[in-house]
Order: sequence, then structure tokens, then C-alpha cells
Amino acid sequence: MALGADGSLVMVQQVQEFDVVVVGGGAVGENAADRAGRTGLSVAIVEHALVGGECSYWACMPSKALLRPGSALAAARAVPGAAAAGTGTVDVAAAFARRDEVAHHWDDGSQVSWLDSAGITLLRGHARFTGPRALTVTDGSEETPVVARRAVVLATGSEPIVPATLADVRPWSSRDATSAQHVPARLAILGGGVVGVEMATAFADFGSEVTLLVRGARLLGGAEPFAGELVADALRAAGVDVRFGTEVTGATRDDGGVHLELSSADGTVRLDVTEVLAATGRRPRTSDVGLETIGLTPGKPAEVDDALCVTGVEDGWLFAVGDVSGRTATTHQGKYDARVAGDVVAHRFGPGGGDERDAAPWSRFRATADVAAVPQVVFTRPEVAWVGRSEAAARDAGIDVQVLDYALEDVAGATVLSPDYRGRGRLVVDRSRGVVVGATFVGPDVAELLHAATVAVVGEVPLDRLWHAVPSYPTLSEVWLRFLETAGL
Amino acid sequence: MALGADGSLVMVQQVQEFDVVVVGGGAVGENAADRAGRTGLSVAIVEHALVGGECSYWACMPSKALLRPGSALAAARAVPGAAAAGTGTVDVAAAFARRDEVAHHWDDGSQVSWLDSAGITLLRGHARFTGPRALTVTDGSEETPVVARRAVVLATGSEPIVPATLADVRPWSSRDATSAQHVPARLAILGGGVVGVEMATAFADFGSEVTLLVRGARLLGGAEPFAGELVADALRAAGVDVRFGTEVTGATRDDGGVHLELSSADGTVRLDVTEVLAATGRRPRTSDVGLETIGLTPGKPAEVDDALCVTGVEDGWLFAVGDVSGRTATTHQGKYDARVAGDVVAHRFGPGGGDERDAAPWSRFRATADVAAVPQVVFTRPEVAWVGRSEAAARDAGIDVQVLDYALEDVAGATVLSPDYRGRGRLVVDRSRGVVVGATFVGPDVAELLHAATVAVVGEVPLDRLWHAVPSYPTLSEVWLRFLETAGL
Repeated sequence: MALGADGSLVMVQQVQEFDVVVVGGGAVGENAADRAGRTGLSVAIVEHALVGGECSYWACMPSKALLRPGSALAAARAVPGAAAAGTGTVDVAAAFARRDEVAHHWDDGSQVSWLDSAGITLLRGHARFTGPRALTVTDGSEETPVVARRAVVLATGSEPIVPATLADVRPWSSRDATSAQHVPARLAILGGGVVGVEMATAFADFGSEVTLLVRGARLLGGAEPFAGELVADALRAAGVDVRFGTEVTGATRDDGGVHLELSSADGTVRLDVTEVLAATGRRPRTSDVGLETIGLTPGKPAEVDDALCVTGVEDGWLFAVGDVSGRTATTHQGKYDARVAGDVVAHRFGPGGGDERDAAPWSRFRATADVAAVPQVVFTRPEVAWVGRSEAAARDAGIDVQVLDYALEDVAGATVLSPDYRGRGRLVVDRSRGVVVGATFVGPDVAELLHAATVAVVGEVPLDRLWHAVPSYPTLSEVWLRFLETAGL
Repeated sequence: MALGADGSLVMVQQVQEFDVVVVGGGAVGENAADRAGRTGLSVAIVEHALVGGECSYWACMPSKALLRPGSALAAARAVPGAAAAGTGTVDVAAAFARRDEVAHHWDDGSQVSWLDSAGITLLRGHARFTGPRALTVTDGSEETPVVARRAVVLATGSEPIVPATLADVRPWSSRDATSAQHVPARLAILGGGVVGVEMATAFADFGSEVTLLVRGARLLGGAEPFAGELVADALRAAGVDVRFGTEVTGATRDDGGVHLELSSADGTVRLDVTEVLAATGRRPRTSDVGLETIGLTPGKPAEVDDALCVTGVEDGWLFAVGDVSGRTATTHQGKYDARVAGDVVAHRFGPGGGDERDAAPWSRFRATADVAAVPQVVFTRPEVAWVGRSEAAARDAGIDVQVLDYALEDVAGATVLSPDYRGRGRLVVDRSRGVVVGATFVGPDVAELLHAATVAVVGEVPLDRLWHAVPSYPTLSEVWLRFLETAGL
């Protein structure tokens, strides 16, 4: 028995040693653990909640399950011949039930089995560093000292930022929204980022009266401006009250719901809603992992180099992957980091040893795409998909930019989907190299268009070679031909 | 006045001269004419029917318009939350009306306006060669001699092959099916190629009792075998009677419909249907264009080199693009040929002149993709999409083949689309070069997945670079990550 951090008595277990300890058992941590172990290193993963993490249970998967029924019905309504049959509304109970299935009823049994089959030890509890390569894992009143002989991979993800004005009214987080078991009659959503626009779409589908409150002047800030504009138009057409330049300056909750005080250039107004969702961003989850014991600052991102090695720590034993590094903010890109970091660990510390410190960009030991080619899909209606640099970001980076724009409704494939199809595509080209450095697509059913752009950006395929990549007719992908014709090819 | 080919009196007009004459005003001919004229050469296009051609009025576009409503409803039915609302059947009248719009009510006014705006002269009539660079254009009783000072581009397309046994019963051609104004109660379709499977899907949607009669043992002969298998399974599930190893050995028509005698290994049976569609392939349309006057054989394809220059004709003045060359069989690939041929003509014969005869593969003057990377999408349910070489074709070409297969239903993006999603993806890799040489996707909503593969094949992007092309989660495109993991990356 010993005294715990909070003064309570804790049962201290025997020290456990592993070659590699991964802190955080989300999809990203799982990938890092899997690959780190491939050369025979022993690997443990520490998770205090569900193995599989945010994405599987409270983010990507349940949110897409909530959005898909409305999307499928909208696609049917858009095409004569199906419109009459597809005019019904979303069956909320069925949508929720399917969402529950997709989220495995918030049971991580299958993920735990997978860890087991991959030979990875699962330590349940909350991990905190006590020094270099040394941690304690706290699970209730038990505390287990854990030593990583070789490396630690930090994969604790991120946590939502709750605005101070909402702190007292217990707002919904994205978790509450994606795992909702009822539909608020009136829902206010703070934030015009991905979570905000996706949940506005879903809850409008379910019959909520949705108000989307955005501090700035646009939605989806990181994307090309036209993306946010088209989504705002569509949300408004779907009945969502979208208010820009609006801040919440006060909030109270009572039995009647949540009462917000909103301030904008037009003055102060009151908004009464049943529920409020705070979708105002996330921060790396580093405040309670003992970073101070290894010379890092709690609450700050764990900054990394292209090998995902944390730069502020000596001897290259600490890696950070996923949201916690502040380098990426999506599951797929976090898993990419995890593959790279896992391979670096397995190579650098595995039997036989190896040194990849002079590895070139685009080698398997360098997460080069984190800078050049991060893809993102937003499952609103219209869908929004982008990769690489926006026009503005490319100009900021000093690139000699050529912008190729095309209206998607002028592509024959769009005509097939709907007489009312509306969308837009943009390629951002580095004129000096003749290669694509960014792409954005906005419109119904554009999600799967993105990967061609990602391959073009990553492959640095010149425009005059892309000229020979013929899109099938009539698909939306024909926009590629139009881009190249626009470029004068 | 003079005596026409058939002995009737014809009014012979003055000779018309152009730098370039394009024979055939389909989408392919239009593209060739447009690009050939870009350096200032005068260009005429000869068309006896609708400018815009088969694709716009009787093939790609109307067929996709017919297929889309059923596809949209099936997608809604597949997802809980939308299923109840989306269970209706296709509204045939609305689908036909939309098809009519998509086919511009078989009026080519907008296409004619486009020719006009592009400065291309339209000659209405049927063109026949009378010798090198010399043609006559016959329009009713008028005959106009036309001289091409520089080049002729043959773009007459193809025509359906009607089996001899059906010649007397006036079967539907693909044109009749795509422009149908009523739904036959019982429809027999001969042929398991693209037209056969697409029209079986559409008319089953419309309530026809469809029998698909296939001489061979599989559907979609050129594709990976699993493509045809998945489509056959789905057609049968949709109520289509799919019969392999079956030939039509006799046919009669009376007021009761069409009576077919079918022979298979099981013997001879009779099938009574309301209508029969012959979807048994097409042949280049070269039998009545005067090929004999320029040393070529009528009825045979006009064989071309990679510059689309007809190989059997001296001095390099004759080009052939689209179906007529026998080199490609889709609108998009024909238009690619047209762009290459048009650029060759404009460069070789334009002001200032130029010689592109030593142009390298993948230059804008060589249709390199016709061999390496022809894409095709079949809009059945499941959709089928492929590009480049199948496994068998790659082996036949002596390539050291690595096959990467993945079940699409195991991708998270498929789970979102439907709990019942079923599909398959395959990459064919040239192991010695480490590049993708072919890809096939089969499943709901895979059409837009194809272009990423086309870019990878055309760009010859190595697998270890594709490793950095991160697919967005959760999309179907994630199958790319699974392919690469399957390859051991």
C-alpha cells in the first residue's frame, strides 16, 4: 500500500517491463502498437476507456451512421423516377439503432480480442510518466509501475474545448451528439467546423430545429472558401438557422432547457433551445500524463519531427502520433503517423537494430504526407472533400499558384445524379513544377473523388501525364478532364 | 445533274475544300474537329444523323438516366433509417421523362450551335471516299464533292451486330432499349456484355420479366471473372433469369410477341417474350464509306498507330478515332483518341508545320493510355469499374503479376453505406516495377473509386509512394490502404 497522487491509499503492483509502451488505445495507438511489434519487440498498450477510441465509438463511425440515411434519401429525392418513392423522412429510431450497431454498442470486446491476437498486452488504466521511459498506470485503487525498455509512443488523442460561457450548462460534446438517444426539439450548435456542420445536418434530418452559431464569417475555416459557402447555402435550405459573427456571451439551464445570450454586430439576442452542442474545437490530451517529469509542458501538443519523434526529449525514445502531436486531426492521418512511427520504432529498436535517421522524404520512415497531402472528407450535403493545400495556403507557402476551377453540375455524370446537381471542384497547381498540390470537391457524392487527387499530389504526377488518365464517362470524375482542359492542355 | 451510286439522279454541288474533314459528328468526331482546328486549320465535320452521336442520344447518357432511379432507391433501401422511406419502386414515366431530357429530346440544336461557335463547318449527309483526301457527301438527292487539303479523320463509330437468327424478328437494338417509350412485359436480352447487363438491370427495375441469354459461361467477358459473378448474383436476386451456355437457334414474331428457340447443353426449349433485345456486340462502321477507293477493306476496322494515323494509307493524311479503329470501344477513350489525333493534325499540318513523328510515349501526340490504361464503368448494381489489365491479361502480357484482393464489405466506408454491403476490389501489380497495371472494383457506389487507380496506372506511381496516399476515413477508398497492407507494406 502507498499514498496515491490524490492522497488516497493505492495498491502498488509489481513493475511491468516492455520494449515499447503505447499510451492510448484508440485506432491510432493500436496501429502504432501493431507495427512497433512486428520485429519482435514486446509491446503494451495502455487505455483507460474503450479500446478503439474516439473514432470507433464517438466520432467518425457513429457520426457517419447518423448522416447516411438522410444522404441516401436526399440522393433519391434528387432524381426523377426515384423522387416520389424517396420522399420520406429519416426513421430516427432505425438510424439510432444502426448507429448503435456501428459503434458496437460501445463494447470493445472485438478490439481487445484483436490486441490479443496481435500479441499486444493491454494495460487498463490511466498512464502518467514518472520519468524517461517510466510510467505508472492507475486503475481504480491499483497502481502499476511500467518501464519501457526502448520507446514510448504517446497516442492520447485530444479532448473537446468547452467554452467558458457554457461550462455551467453542461453542453453536449461531440460524444453526446454522436451517441444521442433522443432528438432535442431545438438544438443550438456552437462552431462551424466539421463537427458543427455534420451534426447540424444530421439533427436537421432528425427533425430538430437547429441553430448553428459561428463566431467567424464562414464555415469550414481550413477549406477553400467556396466549400463553406455551399454548405451554408445547403444548411439554410434544409431549415438550419446559420448565424455568422455570433458569440455566446451567457448561458443558463433550467427545466425548460438552455437559454443562450448571443452577441453579434447587430446587438444581443436571446436563444432558447432544448440542448446546446459545443463543437468549438479540441486540444491535445496532455494535461494529465506527467509530461512535466520528462521536460515537456502539460497541456501543450507533443511536437514531433517527420519520424514522429518528440523533439523536446533526448535520446529519441518518445514518439507521438495522432491528435496529441497537434500535427494532424483525423483518424486516417493519425493512423498514417502511427504506421510511420511504428515502423521507425520496430526498425530502430528491433533485433539487429537499424538507423533510419538519414531516411529521405517519402520513405516509409518519414510522414511526408502530413505536410503535403492531408485528406479530409466532410459528410454534409453537399459533401466536402479536400487534400493538400488550399489556394490561400499554397500562396502563403510561396508557391507559383495556378487555380483550376470547374462547376461540377457541368459534368455529364452530375446530370445523371440529378437535374438539380450543384457543386464545384478546384485544383491548386504548382505552376513551376506542373504538379497538383491541392484539390477540393464540393457536391453530392464527391467523397470518393478525393483519392484520385491524393494519389496525384502524393505521386507528384505532372499535369501532362494526368492528361492520359481518362475519366470514365459519365462519372463525376470527368471533372479531371475539365480541369486539364481549363489549364489549356 | 448526274447519276448517283444507286442509279438515281442526283444534284451535284460545287466542290467544297477544307484543310481537315472529320467524318462523323459524334462526341469523338466533335473533339477531333475542335482540336484539329486550334492552330487555324479550316475544319468540316460530316454527319448524316444527330450531331453528338450515339453516346448522347442512344448510349451512355440515356442508359445512365434509366439506371439512376433504381440505383438511388436501392441505396436508400440498403441503409436502416432510410429503408422504410425508400422502398418504393421506380416511377417509370418520370424516369422516361428524365431520360428524354438527358437525351435532349433527340434534338441536336445545342450541339450544332457549339460547332458553329467553334468555327467548324457542319456538312449534313453521308460521306464516302472517292480517293485520297476526296469524298462525296450525299444528303438526299444532293451530292457534294469535298476535298480535304491536309487530313481526314474517320470517326464513324460502330453499329450493332444483329445475329442472323434474329434478323427476321426485328429485335430491339441498344438504341431501341435506351429510347424505349414503353416497358415490355417480358424482355429477352441476348448478350452478357455491358449493354446486356445494364439493360437487364434497368428493365427489371421497370417491372419487366427479364431473361438474359448468354452464349458463354460468364458476364462481362473482358473484366475480372469475379465481376461477372457478382453481377450475375445480383441480377438473379433482382429476379432476372440469367442463362449461360445458351444460344438462340430460332425466332419468330407474331401479334403475341417474339418466340425464341433456345439451345443449351440441356437441350432445346422455347421462350415466349414480348420483346427481344440484341446486345451481341458492335462492329466498326466502315462498310459504306468508300474505303475501297483508298486501298482499305470495307467492313474492317481502320487500324491505327499510337498517333491514331491509319497504318494502311500512305502519306499520313488519314486518321481514325473512336470505335471505328477497333482500338477502343467507349466514348471517353474515343474522345481521348480524338484529342490526340486532333493535336497531331493541328501540329503536323497547322501553320508553321511541325513533325511529331519522334514523339515519345505519354506525349500529347501519342495515345499511350489506349494500351496501358483504358477505364470502364458498368452502371449495374453492383457497379463494376476497371482500368488497365486484368490478372489474366497481365499474365498473358508476360508481366510478373502480384494480385492484391480485398473484400470491400470489410472496409469501414462500406459499413456506413449498408450493413449488407458486398463487393470486391483487386489491384494487379507488376512486381518487377512495383507499379499498379490494373484495378477492378465491384460493389455499390464504386464508380468514382476508379479514377484513383487510373491516375496510379498512368502515373506509374510506385506502391511505396502510394503508401503515403492516405484514404479518408471512412470512405470506400480506404480499400487502397488494405491493398497495400495486403502487399506487406
